[in-house]
Amino acid sequence: MQESRLANLLRQEKFNEIEITSFIDTFEVVTLQKGDHILKEGQVCTFVGFVDKGLLIYYNISEDGEEKICDFAIENQWVTQYQSMSTNSKSLLSIKAIEPTILLKTTHQNLINIAEEMPRIDKYFKKMIDNFLFTMVSRTNDFQNLIAEERYSKFVKENPQLIQRLPQYYLASFLGIAPQSLSRIRKNNLR
Amino acid sequence: MQESRLANLLRQEKFNEIEITSFIDTFEVVTLQKGDHILKEGQVCTFVGFVDKGLLIYYNISEDGEEKICDFAIENQWVTQYQSMSTNSKSLLSIKAIEPTILLKTTHQNLINIAEEMPRIDKYFKKMIDNFLFTMVSRTNDFQNLIAEERYSKFVKENPQLIQRLPQYYLASFLGIAPQSLSRIRKNNLR
Repeated sequence: MQESRLANLLRQEKFNEIEITSFIDTFEVVTLQKGDHILKEGQVCTFVGFVDKGLLIYYNISEDGEEKICDFAIENQWVTQYQSMSTNSKSLLSIKAIEPTILLKTTHQNLINIAEEMPRIDKYFKKMIDNFLFTMVSRTNDFQNLIAEERYSKFVKENPQLIQRLPQYYLASFLGIAPQSLSRIRKNNLR
Repeated sequence: MQESRLANLLRQEKFNEIEITSFIDTFEVVTLQKGDHILKEGQVCTFVGFVDKGLLIYYNISEDGEEKICDFAIENQWVTQYQSMSTNSKSLLSIKAIEPTILLKTTHQNLINIAEEMPRIDKYFKKMIDNFLFTMVSRTNDFQNLIAEERYSKFVKENPQLIQRLPQYYLASFLGIAPQSLSRIRKNNLR
Protein backbone atom coordinates (compact mmCIF):
# COMPACT_ATOMS: atom_id res chain seq x y z
CA MET A 1 0.00 0.00 0.00
CA GLN A 2 3.11 2.25 0.20
CA GLU A 3 2.51 3.93 -3.13
CA SER A 4 -0.95 5.11 -2.21
CA ARG A 5 -2.08 8.69 -2.03
CA LEU A 6 -1.72 8.45 1.76
CA ALA A 7 2.00 7.62 1.50
CA ASN A 8 2.47 10.55 -0.88
CA LEU A 9 0.64 12.89 1.47
CA LEU A 10 2.79 11.75 4.41
CA ARG A 11 5.95 12.26 2.34
CA GLN A 12 4.81 15.82 1.61
CA GLU A 13 4.47 16.27 5.38
CA LYS A 14 8.17 15.22 5.69
CA PHE A 15 7.58 11.91 7.47
CA ASN A 16 10.40 9.40 6.90
CA GLU A 17 9.83 5.99 5.25
CA ILE A 18 9.96 4.11 8.58
CA GLU A 19 7.23 6.34 10.04
CA ILE A 20 5.16 6.05 6.86
CA THR A 21 5.37 2.24 6.75
CA SER A 22 4.62 1.80 10.47
CA PHE A 23 1.65 4.15 10.20
CA ILE A 24 0.18 2.75 6.98
CA ASP A 25 0.53 -0.84 8.23
CA THR A 26 -2.25 -0.10 10.76
CA PHE A 27 -4.71 0.65 7.91
CA GLU A 28 -6.96 -1.74 6.00
CA VAL A 29 -8.39 -1.14 2.52
CA VAL A 30 -12.20 -0.91 2.39
CA THR A 31 -14.05 -0.90 -0.93
CA LEU A 32 -17.44 0.81 -0.90
CA GLN A 33 -20.21 0.76 -3.48
CA LYS A 34 -22.36 3.83 -4.10
CA GLY A 35 -24.80 3.99 -1.14
CA ASP A 36 -22.66 1.95 1.30
CA HIS A 37 -22.39 3.43 4.80
CA ILE A 38 -19.27 3.61 6.95
CA LEU A 39 -21.21 5.15 9.86
CA LYS A 40 -24.89 5.35 10.71
CA GLU A 41 -26.61 7.89 12.98
CA GLY A 42 -26.67 6.47 16.53
CA GLN A 43 -23.46 4.45 16.17
CA VAL A 44 -20.25 5.44 17.96
CA CYS A 45 -17.50 6.31 15.46
CA THR A 46 -14.36 4.26 16.22
CA PHE A 47 -12.39 4.79 13.00
CA VAL A 48 -10.45 7.32 10.96
CA GLY A 49 -10.52 6.93 7.19
CA PHE A 50 -8.53 8.40 4.32
CA VAL A 51 -10.16 8.67 0.89
CA ASP A 52 -7.92 7.03 -1.73
CA LYS A 53 -10.62 7.31 -4.40
CA GLY A 54 -14.27 8.33 -4.38
CA LEU A 55 -16.66 10.67 -2.61
CA LEU A 56 -18.53 10.40 0.69
CA ILE A 57 -21.15 12.62 2.32
CA TYR A 58 -21.96 13.33 5.97
CA TYR A 59 -25.73 13.72 6.33
CA ASN A 60 -28.77 13.38 8.52
CA ILE A 61 -32.45 12.90 7.74
CA SER A 62 -34.75 15.89 8.29
CA GLU A 63 -38.23 15.59 9.83
CA ASP A 64 -39.75 15.51 6.34
CA GLY A 65 -37.49 12.59 5.32
CA GLU A 66 -34.95 14.53 3.25
CA GLU A 67 -31.19 13.90 3.32
CA LYS A 68 -29.49 17.02 4.70
CA ILE A 69 -25.81 17.01 3.82
CA CYS A 70 -23.46 18.87 6.19
CA ASP A 71 -20.08 17.83 4.83
CA PHE A 72 -18.29 15.65 2.26
CA ALA A 73 -14.90 13.99 1.75
CA ILE A 74 -13.02 13.38 -1.51
CA GLU A 75 -9.60 12.05 -2.50
CA ASN A 76 -6.76 13.03 -0.12
CA GLN A 77 -9.14 13.96 2.68
CA TRP A 78 -9.61 12.37 6.09
CA VAL A 79 -13.05 11.14 7.09
CA THR A 80 -14.29 10.54 10.63
CA GLN A 81 -17.01 11.82 12.95
CA TYR A 82 -14.65 13.57 15.33
CA GLN A 83 -17.18 14.53 18.04
CA SER A 84 -18.53 10.98 18.32
CA MET A 85 -15.02 9.48 18.27
CA SER A 86 -13.38 11.86 20.72
CA THR A 87 -16.23 11.83 23.25
CA ASN A 88 -17.23 8.18 22.70
CA SER A 89 -20.82 9.30 22.05
CA LYS A 90 -23.47 8.36 19.49
CA SER A 91 -23.03 10.06 16.14
CA LEU A 92 -25.76 12.56 15.21
CA LEU A 93 -25.15 11.88 11.51
CA SER A 94 -24.41 9.17 8.96
CA ILE A 95 -21.56 8.88 6.46
CA LYS A 96 -22.00 7.08 3.11
CA ALA A 97 -20.28 6.77 -0.24
CA ILE A 98 -22.07 8.43 -3.17
CA GLU A 99 -19.50 7.13 -5.69
CA PRO A 100 -17.60 3.80 -5.78
CA THR A 101 -14.98 4.52 -3.09
CA ILE A 102 -11.68 3.10 -1.87
CA LEU A 103 -11.09 3.99 1.74
CA LEU A 104 -8.02 3.36 3.90
CA LYS A 105 -9.30 2.83 7.41
CA THR A 106 -7.72 2.50 10.83
CA THR A 107 -9.17 2.37 14.32
CA HIS A 108 -9.16 5.19 16.86
CA GLN A 109 -7.19 2.87 19.18
CA ASN A 110 -4.53 2.27 16.49
CA LEU A 111 -4.24 6.02 16.08
CA ILE A 112 -3.83 6.55 19.84
CA ASN A 113 -1.13 3.84 19.95
CA ILE A 114 0.80 5.18 16.98
CA ALA A 115 0.54 8.78 18.24
CA GLU A 116 2.08 7.67 21.55
CA GLU A 117 4.93 5.93 19.73
CA MET A 118 5.47 8.67 17.15
CA PRO A 119 5.09 12.22 18.46
CA ARG A 120 5.19 13.63 14.91
CA ILE A 121 2.07 11.62 13.96
CA ASP A 122 0.42 12.96 17.13
CA LYS A 123 1.40 16.51 16.15
CA TYR A 124 0.18 15.99 12.57
CA PHE A 125 -3.29 14.92 13.74
CA LYS A 126 -3.50 17.79 16.23
CA LYS A 127 -2.76 20.13 13.31
CA MET A 128 -5.49 18.38 11.26
CA ILE A 129 -8.02 18.95 14.07
CA ASP A 130 -6.99 22.62 14.33
CA ASN A 131 -7.40 22.97 10.54
CA PHE A 132 -10.85 21.37 10.79
CA LEU A 133 -11.74 23.95 13.47
CA PHE A 134 -10.49 26.85 11.31
CA THR A 135 -12.56 25.52 8.38
CA MET A 136 -15.68 25.38 10.56
CA VAL A 137 -15.11 28.94 11.85
CA SER A 138 -14.65 30.12 8.27
CA ARG A 139 -17.84 28.33 7.09
CA THR A 140 -19.82 29.87 9.97
CA ASN A 141 -18.48 33.33 9.09
CA ASP A 142 -19.42 32.81 5.44
CA PHE A 143 -23.00 31.99 6.43
CA GLN A 144 -23.05 35.12 8.63
CA ASN A 145 -21.53 37.46 6.06
CA LEU A 146 -22.14 36.21 2.52
CA ILE A 147 -25.34 35.99 0.48
CA ALA A 148 -26.23 32.71 -1.29
CA GLU A 149 -24.69 33.79 -4.63
CA GLU A 150 -21.40 34.62 -2.91
CA ARG A 151 -21.32 31.30 -1.01
CA TYR A 152 -21.93 29.42 -4.28
CA SER A 153 -19.17 31.34 -6.13
CA LYS A 154 -16.72 30.73 -3.31
CA PHE A 155 -17.55 27.00 -3.30
CA VAL A 156 -17.02 26.75 -7.09
CA LYS A 157 -13.68 28.55 -6.80
CA GLU A 158 -12.44 26.36 -3.92
CA ASN A 159 -13.88 23.02 -5.18
CA PRO A 160 -13.99 23.15 -9.00
CA GLN A 161 -13.69 19.34 -9.25
CA LEU A 162 -16.76 18.81 -7.04
CA ILE A 163 -19.24 20.79 -9.13
CA GLN A 164 -19.43 17.94 -11.68
CA ARG A 165 -19.48 15.19 -9.05
CA LEU A 166 -21.83 16.42 -6.32
CA PRO A 167 -25.54 16.12 -7.19
CA GLN A 168 -27.22 19.52 -7.18
CA TYR A 169 -29.62 18.77 -4.29
CA TYR A 170 -26.66 17.82 -2.10
CA LEU A 171 -24.81 21.00 -3.06
CA ALA A 172 -27.92 23.09 -2.29
CA SER A 173 -28.25 21.44 1.11
CA PHE A 174 -24.53 21.90 1.91
CA LEU A 175 -24.72 25.61 0.99
CA GLY A 176 -27.97 26.13 2.92
CA ILE A 177 -29.76 27.23 -0.27
CA ALA A 178 -33.17 26.01 -1.54
CA PRO A 179 -32.64 23.76 -4.63
CA GLN A 180 -34.72 26.09 -6.85
CA SER A 181 -32.62 29.11 -5.73
CA LEU A 182 -29.42 27.21 -6.55
CA SER A 183 -30.78 26.41 -10.04
CA ARG A 184 -31.48 30.12 -10.58
CA ILE A 185 -27.99 31.10 -9.35
CA ARG A 186 -26.33 28.53 -11.66
CA LYS A 187 -28.36 29.69 -14.66
CA ASN A 188 -27.41 33.33 -13.97
CA ASN A 189 -23.74 32.32 -13.66
CA LEU A 190 -23.81 30.60 -17.07
CA ARG A 191 -25.02 33.73 -18.84
CA MET B 1 -8.80 37.19 43.04
CA GLN B 2 -9.61 33.71 44.42
CA GLU B 3 -13.32 34.33 44.88
CA SER B 4 -13.83 35.33 41.28
CA ARG B 5 -16.08 33.57 38.81
CA LEU B 6 -12.97 31.94 37.37
CA ALA B 7 -12.10 30.28 40.70
CA ASN B 8 -15.68 29.04 40.99
CA LEU B 9 -15.60 27.63 37.47
CA LEU B 10 -12.31 25.83 38.16
CA ARG B 11 -13.75 24.40 41.41
CA GLN B 12 -16.69 23.04 39.41
CA GLU B 13 -14.11 21.38 37.14
CA LYS B 14 -12.68 19.66 40.27
CA PHE B 15 -9.36 21.49 40.33
CA ASN B 16 -7.82 21.64 43.81
CA GLU B 17 -7.06 24.94 45.59
CA ILE B 18 -3.30 24.71 44.86
CA GLU B 19 -3.97 24.33 41.13
CA ILE B 20 -6.54 27.14 41.20
CA THR B 21 -4.23 29.56 43.01
CA SER B 22 -1.22 28.77 40.80
CA PHE B 23 -3.30 29.19 37.68
CA ILE B 24 -5.13 32.36 38.70
CA ASP B 25 -1.88 34.01 39.86
CA THR B 26 -0.82 34.19 36.19
CA PHE B 27 -3.83 36.41 35.36
CA GLU B 28 -4.15 40.18 35.54
CA VAL B 29 -7.39 42.14 35.86
CA VAL B 30 -8.20 44.40 32.91
CA THR B 31 -11.04 46.92 33.09
CA LEU B 32 -12.59 47.88 29.76
CA GLN B 33 -14.95 50.70 28.89
CA LYS B 34 -17.64 50.26 26.25
CA GLY B 35 -15.84 50.43 22.87
CA ASP B 36 -12.37 49.44 24.19
CA HIS B 37 -10.54 46.84 22.09
CA ILE B 38 -8.54 43.87 23.38
CA LEU B 39 -7.53 42.85 19.84
CA LYS B 40 -7.56 44.66 16.50
CA GLU B 41 -7.64 43.08 13.04
CA GLY B 42 -4.04 42.56 11.85
CA GLN B 43 -2.58 42.07 15.35
CA VAL B 44 -1.34 38.68 16.55
CA CYS B 45 -3.41 37.46 19.50
CA THR B 46 -1.10 36.54 22.41
CA PHE B 47 -3.62 36.31 25.26
CA VAL B 48 -6.46 34.27 26.69
CA GLY B 49 -9.13 36.15 28.63
CA PHE B 50 -11.96 35.15 30.92
CA VAL B 51 -15.01 37.41 31.22
CA ASP B 52 -15.68 38.18 34.88
CA LYS B 53 -18.30 40.79 33.97
CA GLY B 54 -19.48 42.36 30.73
CA LEU B 55 -19.91 41.56 27.08
CA LEU B 56 -17.47 41.53 24.15
CA ILE B 57 -17.97 41.01 20.43
CA TYR B 58 -15.73 39.51 17.74
CA TYR B 59 -16.23 41.43 14.50
CA ASN B 60 -14.80 42.64 11.25
CA ILE B 61 -15.64 45.56 8.98
CA SER B 62 -17.40 44.78 5.71
CA GLU B 63 -16.56 46.50 2.40
CA ASP B 64 -19.42 48.94 2.95
CA GLY B 65 -18.05 49.90 6.39
CA GLU B 66 -20.47 47.90 8.55
CA GLU B 67 -19.47 45.95 11.68
CA LYS B 68 -20.09 42.25 11.02
CA ILE B 69 -20.22 40.33 14.29
CA CYS B 70 -19.22 36.67 14.16
CA ASP B 71 -19.13 35.82 17.87
CA PHE B 72 -19.49 37.23 21.39
CA ALA B 73 -18.34 36.44 24.93
CA ILE B 74 -20.20 37.04 28.21
CA GLU B 75 -19.64 36.22 31.88
CA ASN B 76 -17.98 32.82 32.51
CA GLN B 77 -16.77 32.52 28.93
CA TRP B 78 -13.22 32.44 27.58
CA VAL B 79 -12.20 34.98 24.97
CA THR B 80 -9.29 34.66 22.56
CA GLN B 81 -8.67 34.53 18.82
CA TYR B 82 -7.59 30.91 18.74
CA GLN B 83 -6.48 30.71 15.09
CA SER B 84 -4.26 33.78 15.39
CA MET B 85 -2.84 32.64 18.75
CA SER B 86 -2.18 29.00 17.83
CA THR B 87 -0.63 29.75 14.42
CA ASN B 88 1.05 33.02 15.44
CA SER B 89 -0.66 34.77 12.52
CA LYS B 90 -2.44 38.11 12.11
CA SER B 91 -6.02 38.10 13.36
CA LEU B 92 -8.70 38.53 10.68
CA LEU B 93 -11.03 40.14 13.21
CA SER B 94 -11.20 42.53 16.14
CA ILE B 95 -12.54 42.01 19.67
CA LYS B 96 -14.05 44.88 21.68
CA ALA B 97 -16.19 45.40 24.77
CA ILE B 98 -19.74 46.63 24.12
CA GLU B 99 -20.49 46.95 27.85
CA PRO B 100 -18.21 48.01 30.73
CA THR B 101 -16.21 44.80 31.15
CA ILE B 102 -13.91 43.18 33.70
CA LEU B 103 -11.59 40.71 32.04
CA LEU B 104 -9.07 38.35 33.62
CA LYS B 105 -6.24 38.03 31.16
CA THR B 106 -3.17 35.83 30.87
CA THR B 107 -0.62 35.35 28.11
CA HIS B 108 -0.41 32.43 25.71
CA GLN B 109 3.10 31.78 27.08
CA ASN B 110 1.81 31.64 30.68
CA LEU B 111 -0.80 29.15 29.52
CA ILE B 112 1.83 26.97 27.80
CA ASN B 113 4.00 27.05 30.95
CA ILE B 114 1.16 26.19 33.33
CA ALA B 115 -0.14 23.45 31.00
CA GLU B 116 3.33 21.85 31.06
CA GLU B 117 3.44 22.00 34.86
CA MET B 118 -0.18 20.91 35.37
CA PRO B 119 -1.43 18.24 32.97
CA ARG B 120 -5.02 18.73 34.17
CA ILE B 121 -4.97 22.39 33.07
CA ASP B 122 -3.61 21.21 29.72
CA LYS B 123 -6.42 18.64 29.47
CA TYR B 124 -9.03 21.24 30.48
CA PHE B 125 -7.97 23.62 27.69
CA LYS B 126 -7.87 20.81 25.13
CA LYS B 127 -11.46 20.01 26.14
CA MET B 128 -12.37 23.71 25.76
CA ILE B 129 -10.92 23.74 22.22
CA ASP B 130 -12.85 20.56 21.35
CA ASN B 131 -16.03 22.17 22.71
CA PHE B 132 -15.35 25.26 20.62
CA LEU B 133 -15.02 22.98 17.57
CA PHE B 134 -18.30 21.17 18.37
CA THR B 135 -20.03 24.57 18.74
CA MET B 136 -18.73 25.68 15.34
CA VAL B 137 -19.86 22.43 13.67
CA SER B 138 -23.29 22.85 15.26
CA ARG B 139 -23.55 26.50 14.11
CA THR B 140 -22.57 25.53 10.57
CA ASN B 141 -25.20 22.75 10.58
CA ASP B 142 -27.83 25.21 11.83
CA PHE B 143 -27.07 27.56 8.93
CA GLN B 144 -27.33 24.60 6.53
CA ASN B 145 -30.55 23.15 7.97
CA LEU B 146 -32.59 25.86 9.74
CA ILE B 147 -34.48 28.82 8.34
CA ALA B 148 -33.94 32.29 9.86
CA GLU B 149 -36.97 32.02 12.22
CA GLU B 150 -35.68 28.71 13.60
CA ARG B 151 -32.15 30.07 14.11
CA TYR B 152 -33.58 33.06 16.01
CA SER B 153 -35.79 30.83 18.22
CA LYS B 154 -32.86 28.55 19.01
CA PHE B 155 -30.68 31.54 19.92
CA VAL B 156 -33.37 32.96 22.25
CA LYS B 157 -33.78 29.57 23.94
CA GLU B 158 -30.02 29.05 24.42
CA ASN B 159 -29.13 32.68 25.30
CA PRO B 160 -32.16 34.26 27.01
CA GLN B 161 -29.93 36.71 28.95
CA LEU B 162 -28.37 38.05 25.74
CA ILE B 163 -31.57 39.13 24.01
CA GLN B 164 -31.80 42.20 26.27
CA ARG B 165 -28.08 42.97 26.12
CA LEU B 166 -27.08 42.48 22.48
CA PRO B 167 -28.12 45.36 20.18
CA GLN B 168 -30.48 44.12 17.46
CA TYR B 169 -28.12 44.91 14.52
CA TYR B 170 -25.40 42.80 16.15
CA LEU B 171 -27.84 39.93 16.71
CA ALA B 172 -29.01 40.14 13.07
CA SER B 173 -25.41 40.05 11.87
CA PHE B 174 -24.54 37.09 14.15
CA LEU B 175 -27.57 35.13 12.89
CA GLY B 176 -26.89 36.00 9.24
CA ILE B 177 -30.29 37.72 8.95
CA ALA B 178 -31.02 41.15 7.44
CA PRO B 179 -31.92 43.62 10.27
CA GLN B 180 -35.39 44.27 8.77
CA SER B 181 -36.07 40.51 8.59
CA LEU B 182 -35.07 40.12 12.24
CA SER B 183 -37.45 42.95 13.20
CA ARG B 184 -40.28 41.12 11.40
CA ILE B 185 -39.42 37.80 13.09
CA ARG B 186 -39.35 39.45 16.54
CA LYS B 187 -42.69 41.17 15.93
CA ASN B 188 -44.27 37.87 14.79
CA ASN B 189 -42.87 36.15 17.90
CA LEU B 190 -44.46 38.74 20.22
CA ARG B 191 -47.94 38.17 18.79
